[in-house]
Amino acid sequence: MNRRDLDFILYEVENVEALCQTERYQHCDRATFDAALDTAHQLAHSHFHQYNAKGDRHPPQYCQETDTLTLLPEHVAAHRAYSDAGFLTTSMDAEVGGSQMPVAVSGAVGLHFSSANAGFSAHFALNVGAAKILQHHGTDEQRAHVLPKLLSGEWCGTMCLSETHAGSSLTDIRTTAHPQPDGTYKIRGNKMWITAAENNFGGTIAHMGISLFLVPKHALSFSEEGVSLGDRPASSSAWAGATGGATGHLVGEPNQGLHCMFIMMNELRFQVGLGGVGPALAGYLYSLQYARQRTQGRSPLCRDPSTPMVPIIEHSDVKRMLLLQKAYVEGALGLCMYTAGVIDALATTADAAARSDKLLLLELLTPVVKAWPSEWCLEANKWAMQVLGGYGYTQDFPLEQLYRDARPNMIYEGTSGALDLLGRKASMGGGAALKLLGAAVAEDVAAARAAGGAPLAEAADSLEAAMQRLQETTATLLGAAAGGEVEVGLSNSHAYLTMTGHTAVAWQWLRQGTAARRGLLRLEAEGGDASADDEAFYRGKLHTMQWFTRQELSKTEGMAQLLCSLDDTNVSMRGNWF
Amino acid sequence: MNRRDLDFILYEVENVEALCQTERYQHCDRATFDAALDTAHQLAHSHFHQYNAKGDRHPPQYCQETDTLTLLPEHVAAHRAYSDAGFLTTSMDAEVGGSQMPVAVSGAVGLHFSSANAGFSAHFALNVGAAKILQHHGTDEQRAHVLPKLLSGEWCGTMCLSETHAGSSLTDIRTTAHPQPDGTYKIRGNKMWITAAENNFGGTIAHMGISLFLVPKHALSFSEEGVSLGDRPASSSAWAGATGGATGHLVGEPNQGLHCMFIMMNELRFQVGLGGVGPALAGYLYSLQYARQRTQGRSPLCRDPSTPMVPIIEHSDVKRMLLLQKAYVEGALGLCMYTAGVIDALATTADAAARSDKLLLLELLTPVVKAWPSEWCLEANKWAMQVLGGYGYTQDFPLEQLYRDARPNMIYEGTSGALDLLGRKASMGGGAALKLLGAAVAEDVAAARAAGGAPLAEAADSLEAAMQRLQETTATLLGAAAGGEVEVGLSNSHAYLTMTGHTAVAWQWLRQGTAARRGLLRLEAEGGDASADDEAFYRGKLHTMQWFTRQELSKTEGMAQLLCSLDDTNVSMRGNWF
Repeated sequence: MNRRDLDFILYEVENVEALCQTERYQHCDRATFDAALDTAHQLAHSHFHQYNAKGDRHPPQYCQETDTLTLLPEHVAAHRAYSDAGFLTTSMDAEVGGSQMPVAVSGAVGLHFSSANAGFSAHFALNVGAAKILQHHGTDEQRAHVLPKLLSGEWCGTMCLSETHAGSSLTDIRTTAHPQPDGTYKIRGNKMWITAAENNFGGTIAHMGISLFLVPKHALSFSEEGVSLGDRPASSSAWAGATGGATGHLVGEPNQGLHCMFIMMNELRFQVGLGGVGPALAGYLYSLQYARQRTQGRSPLCRDPSTPMVPIIEHSDVKRMLLLQKAYVEGALGLCMYTAGVIDALATTADAAARSDKLLLLELLTPVVKAWPSEWCLEANKWAMQVLGGYGYTQDFPLEQLYRDARPNMIYEGTSGALDLLGRKASMGGGAALKLLGAAVAEDVAAARAAGGAPLAEAADSLEAAMQRLQETTATLLGAAAGGEVEVGLSNSHAYLTMTGHTAVAWQWLRQGTAARRGLLRLEAEGGDASADDEAFYRGKLHTMQWFTRQELSKTEGMAQLLCSLDDTNVSMRGNWF
Repeated sequence: MNRRDLDFILYEVENVEALCQTERYQHCDRATFDAALDTAHQLAHSHFHQYNAKGDRHPPQYCQETDTLTLLPEHVAAHRAYSDAGFLTTSMDAEVGGSQMPVAVSGAVGLHFSSANAGFSAHFALNVGAAKILQHHGTDEQRAHVLPKLLSGEWCGTMCLSETHAGSSLTDIRTTAHPQPDGTYKIRGNKMWITAAENNFGGTIAHMGISLFLVPKHALSFSEEGVSLGDRPASSSAWAGATGGATGHLVGEPNQGLHCMFIMMNELRFQVGLGGVGPALAGYLYSLQYARQRTQGRSPLCRDPSTPMVPIIEHSDVKRMLLLQKAYVEGALGLCMYTAGVIDALATTADAAARSDKLLLLELLTPVVKAWPSEWCLEANKWAMQVLGGYGYTQDFPLEQLYRDARPNMIYEGTSGALDLLGRKASMGGGAALKLLGAAVAEDVAAARAAGGAPLAEAADSLEAAMQRLQETTATLLGAAAGGEVEVGLSNSHAYLTMTGHTAVAWQWLRQGTAARRGLLRLEAEGGDASADDEAFYRGKLHTMQWFTRQELSKTEGMAQLLCSLDDTNVSMRGNWF
């Protein structure tokens, strides 16, 4: 964990402390936040990082006779320690017993665990999601009886949507619910891809489906599913209702389950994006440390074999791989934390118009914050492996596991291809969502120019042009879709998502660059000599902003050209031509 | 294996049959080639594909007591069957007992094995490489005694360069060789990353190092090395000389080892590139089959849940992932086969000027043919996994293993970053290598235009412009390097390599498109109805050419702009700013 960077993003870029002035967060101050981060750091190290490799080597064991799944005792202990530290309640409202901290802070807490042990820590978000559904849609009895058990970690939560034959096609699911005289329902059907479907944590498991039913696990039987490439300890597993049907308790109104479920889904999409940052951050920091220690070869200007070898961080190709990682990882983290800030602002704003704007912006950001880190932080992991050369893909080093554990993020909670940003989000409110994004970017562009300095001026110009390009491209694509070219729009939704993501991350880099520039000016004003580390930190931020702007944001020019050409090669390809 | 495509590339694009008119290959005809491919197909299925997953689950077992490594009995049998079928000699000269077939054909044979079992089949190329070194540089005794054993598979070959502290920094290796009164040498030192360093195939192993020594394995002791992410059955392993030193037999002249070794290295770089195509081809074909069978959802124009679900190949995002794979995999295969054709032409050309040209072109193509497939076929594997959704990363399906086994290709025989194309190759002969490439491209552009049709005309125009861009970019970068900006050039060598690779693969697609157009015209002239499959095949080729040209080649515009901007952000980043 790079605490310096986390503090920078939380306090210098996002100004999370300002939230303590609001009624909702008035019980908090920076000391509260820091204490939570300190505890997370300790716990993540002692109970999660320590058993990361072991969990990978010893995936959960399924026993057919007892129909149970057994996780490592160290993982059971980690689950207990995490729950006891109160981390399941970090972002929950005080009225249901939560710590009611900003989502930005609970996200920063979560980052410690996803970077320490991505596979095992993936399931905690399911408890929180299930608890939030019950808080808002549960009966008084469910709120009194089940919710506290989810927040204490005594029970676990899952989300049960996919079925073997239907995957993400929710209109085709076959599970049925028949009302019983006692008010419960008999649930019959098969579900799969259920993270945390079974474990030996001791309590029961609350399974949520659609219509939304709460189904305690003791009514179900399980079947084993293939061990995954990554995330082995998350105990993903298929489950099946018992022959006679399992007892389900309706949550909310009948047939409104999907609506309720999207509370959980949107929360999880944010969590998946942030979860993708964790292993990439771990990989970046590990490969950086390795590159500083490992010596090999010499500078291209000095090939004399009698001189000592240099640390490989001095080779420009290694620097490229580190800079790419820093730019992707810290940029993605910035995007997640900005989004968390929008959620926090929403929770502290009463004004209806302002709330509606924030909601619209959040609808636009959610697929981006899910998809971009899933894909590009995985790319960062690939290059972390490469920094170590042959060592990178051996099990003696943690890099190959980090890659494997990060891989499912591209599939969890909707693939990038299925997140139809263009059709569903960008056009929302007649393009109002994108206008809101444009206004937010314009504000930060102005702030960057005001902060001064050539790198910020250049980055601000580039971002302004890129935002203009994004708006024009969106208009062209929506125009084509309105003209009947629906498939062309859909077939380009992946590229459009990438273009939006690259622009959004460049924007976050501009925000970080602006904060770094202010930091440098402050150091200068203070005139102290003790700030060498801080100065290097800020200069690194500005330099990485420049790298991302020049090397990555510039690619949106080609993306825009390609998208606006409305190329239909993909759509017109026929199945029998492959 | 897609034999139709392999036949297309071998016979319709590369015209391998024409080689049978030359003296060197006059003992061959198409029936000879087809028979070799048929045998390879059968053997690859029965002995390699069948045990691909098993080999992954049961990596070689090291026994400390006996200092031996034991592979699965099925792999020992596969090694024997491969050797007995004569596949170690496919490309070897008849004078040393080889079948003396074109490299294009032996490469096509090899593709069957790398797609069936990338991990286990990786080691065969080492026997061939070692045999070629002995043929050209060995003593009469070595040629008589060792070479036949390498070609019969009784002995195995390895390449021993890396050492624990030095990796690819060959000026820093510490292994020493002391001459003995009997003409042999005592070798002392530690080597690592030695593919096929130890096995239980029954014979001994001939280890080659620099200066070039042949060291039979019985003089060495081994130590285990971490099991790899991929390629588990290739038994990569560290080895150490026995305390008293191992006996080495000098091959060639003292201190000329690296020169000799580069015969093996260049052969292996070609093999690594082609080896990268294997698992990507397997992943493409598997995901294609899955996408045709798996039903889910409906077309965007018909959301009626009472209609049956459609095969996912009809969804445009799935089509995108398949088209990307087809374009990368078949384009990379085309590049490998073109390069094989250059090697074959070299072997059948006596004219000194023509030979020198071919050699120069080969020097330029070798790093590209190593790096581009290693990186982009891995990307294809990533998307093959994604086509299967959650199934893609479980061990119940072969996709995740294909990805893992393909991953080390980015590191084998020099990372993309270390393959300094710009500094070492493009500038060769004062830019003569690139001029040769330009002339070859221009010839194919003219042929494409002559073949007619709008898709070819468009692709020819785009390729011509891209080739022009590549030449201008090269001139700009070499000019900057000459002006002292050495580091800037080096730091961009990865991007330059990608730009060259994208251009070269688009060129190969133009060649395939031209052959497809000719095929379509032939079908039309024949007027038969029985050619529906052929027609679909050719249309798919032309369509994929269009996709690669529009979606990928177009990216070289941005790459050129970026490279020519001589951005020094990477070089000026400091170690303590990370």
